[in-house]
Amino acid sequence: MTDYFDALETRAPAEREAALMAALPGLVGHAQARTDAFGELLQGIEASRINSRAALTGLPVVRKTELLARQQASRAAGRDPFGGFSAIGWRGLLSTTGAKRVFQSPGPIYEPEGEGADYWRMGRAIYAAGFRAGDLAHCSFSYHLTPAGAIMETGAHAVGCATFPGGVGNTEMQLQAMAELKPHGYIGTPSFLKILIEKAQETGVNIRSVSKAMVSGEACPPSLRDWFASQGITAFQCYATADLGLVAYETSAREGLVLDEGVIVEIVRPGTGDPVPEGEVGEVVVTTLNRDYPLVRFGTGDLSAVLPGTCPTGRTNTRIKGWMGRADQTVKVRGMFVHPGQVAEIVKRHPEVSRARLVVQGEMASDRMTLKLEATAQPEGLAARVADTVRDVTKLRSDIELLSPGSLPNDGKVIEDARSYQ
Amino acid sequence: MTDYFDALETRAPAEREAALMAALPGLVGHAQARTDAFGELLQGIEASRINSRAALTGLPVVRKTELLARQQASRAAGRDPFGGFSAIGWRGLLSTTGAKRVFQSPGPIYEPEGEGADYWRMGRAIYAAGFRAGDLAHCSFSYHLTPAGAIMETGAHAVGCATFPGGVGNTEMQLQAMAELKPHGYIGTPSFLKILIEKAQETGVNIRSVSKAMVSGEACPPSLRDWFASQGITAFQCYATADLGLVAYETSAREGLVLDEGVIVEIVRPGTGDPVPEGEVGEVVVTTLNRDYPLVRFGTGDLSAVLPGTCPTGRTNTRIKGWMGRADQTVKVRGMFVHPGQVAEIVKRHPEVSRARLVVQGEMASDRMTLKLEATAQPEGLAARVADTVRDVTKLRSDIELLSPGSLPNDGKVIEDARSYQ
Repeated sequence: MTDYFDALETRAPAEREAALMAALPGLVGHAQARTDAFGELLQGIEASRINSRAALTGLPVVRKTELLARQQASRAAGRDPFGGFSAIGWRGLLSTTGAKRVFQSPGPIYEPEGEGADYWRMGRAIYAAGFRAGDLAHCSFSYHLTPAGAIMETGAHAVGCATFPGGVGNTEMQLQAMAELKPHGYIGTPSFLKILIEKAQETGVNIRSVSKAMVSGEACPPSLRDWFASQGITAFQCYATADLGLVAYETSAREGLVLDEGVIVEIVRPGTGDPVPEGEVGEVVVTTLNRDYPLVRFGTGDLSAVLPGTCPTGRTNTRIKGWMGRADQTVKVRGMFVHPGQVAEIVKRHPEVSRARLVVQGEMASDRMTLKLEATAQPEGLAARVADTVRDVTKLRSDIELLSPGSLPNDGKVIEDARSYQ
Repeated sequence: MTDYFDALETRAPAEREAALMAALPGLVGHAQARTDAFGELLQGIEASRINSRAALTGLPVVRKTELLARQQASRAAGRDPFGGFSAIGWRGLLSTTGAKRVFQSPGPIYEPEGEGADYWRMGRAIYAAGFRAGDLAHCSFSYHLTPAGAIMETGAHAVGCATFPGGVGNTEMQLQAMAELKPHGYIGTPSFLKILIEKAQETGVNIRSVSKAMVSGEACPPSLRDWFASQGITAFQCYATADLGLVAYETSAREGLVLDEGVIVEIVRPGTGDPVPEGEVGEVVVTTLNRDYPLVRFGTGDLSAVLPGTCPTGRTNTRIKGWMGRADQTVKVRGMFVHPGQVAEIVKRHPEVSRARLVVQGEMASDRMTLKLEATAQPEGLAARVADTVRDVTKLRSDIELLSPGSLPNDGKVIEDARSYQ
């Protein structure tokens, strides 16, 4: 593939960065002015000054738990179901423009969908997966409650595809539709595509019109991707969420995921708002330029890392590795919750400590904590002083293990739960 | 309610009729030129002459069985899945404009959805049901496979509503969404609305924000409508199909259903293309002005009748009674199929006979047919001659009963299956 969804994908990186940073002050001001939540969360912030990544770093990270808590509190008070995060509503809310659809994701968290075409910006990923205008895309994501079906369908329509809304389940009816409508591509989970292919072979149904796939919603390991290829189907992945829409997408280069053009992505130390050095695993924090639902420094809770270099397809945007686990590593130890933010707080109190990893071991009811530290210097008594800090912050005892810088694995884990649950 | 979806609803009837008849020649020519099916079915017809109801009557009625058969044959030959009925496709078909979505209805029959807003013209019905711009509509029709969800949602969007796509099932999650999002109206089947209300009362969930409903997809008897009213919900019905979109809709006058502005409706003797006298029950035959999927004289297989007079709300279009049963009265008698078209053929061969009704009686395996005839004259030997015709046409024997005009019930039944199946 040598062509692109639009010219944004091949901008000089400096041009892109300048455009994103130039858009930031307006976005922050808009979020402050048009949403109650960011009016509060960013109170006192001078929006015009938020015009660089360094300045952005000074703003709080809004995690999904915060979004959920604010939505719940707002709804309990009989107010806005979006918890003050949406700049649009369908009546009597903050704006005269309205949401076209509203969705319910687990939590429940409610997401608005604005009026514009390709609201979730998924067209870019679907184009990169090889879909083209005039293709028929068979879509097996749910259109009910959650936005998965709508996210993918509006993206396919933006590319110029027609869609068949297969939804979930009804395997035999979906197979019949595939055999009779001869779609060019499949959009859905990789596991359901596998079920469709196997059932088609079992029952002698011909679905070989399908030559490409956009798979998402769960992991698609290389072995499965290769199996799809052996069945004549080239499958690509993307990383998207119900809150943010598209964040990053796979290209024919098969080297990580290229960032979408409508988001500013940071990788931070889990539990903090501090960017990690390039290449280190951390939590994906996204600022979206979507003015209907302007999320500033939204902590996805997902782990990933920047992949150095640029995409061989000519796309110039930053690449990230795929999904590398969950950043929310909160554990319960002897009845007390310990969360990554507390580990970050402990590190902050000791300038000699650059990184930390809390390992919880033992059988149930006999938990044992070890805080492993990378320290640039190891002055007399450091371990004892850190142990005191741990007790202050967590109300729990911990062993301390001092290591030299670079000793801890680069997996984004701030808390490792190594207990046996058998 | 004293306002209307648009100015078309209050046109002088003669103005509407003139506009519809003026549109007919263009539509027929378009269907002939742009669809293979009507190119064949209307071969030799001079489109410019089809400019009156009388002329329209001369065209064949295309029944759902014909649509299905042509789709199946076309698909079996590896051709167009729409059987040559769609004027648009997603690639390599007849037109450069394409379908946005494709749906699968039982049969399966596939239906295209074109690019235009409110493709199924459902906005008019949803407006008449009291929905307004800024309302949130909770939609509990399926968005998967069949077009029910899309038909209703695109109509709600045309009115300016936002939608929550609840889909089918997941009663508790849908109830939670209703309690938290506080929708103004419900769109779905009446039976599922009843389930939601009862479950809400049982579990103490407050869904009293819902004050209006568009119910469809099954019968909503007056008793259920009154029960909804007692629960604070004003419910309206409409008559729509996956092939045609909206055909007729209920208004606050509660007197039958007013015809949509985008269709030409005829009521014909089941099994024929001959219009019945006004007020008599017959099959609903619809010509839709939809140029993406131009159906000319589409026999719905549904029974209804024109309701004389005009709607007290000021809407000037013709009204029909609601759904009065199925017109497809084909029966199997002693191993042979007998269908309404054969009864019509028998009537046609005897000028004295104005109407007929074939009654099949008896226990299984001892069937007995009686053909009841309204005859304007009863010349010597008529019954015997008709009995011969019955044998010619159906290969079956039948008793003949001669009646005076007006004796048969006005229920649209050409064949009555009065056998005991116990």
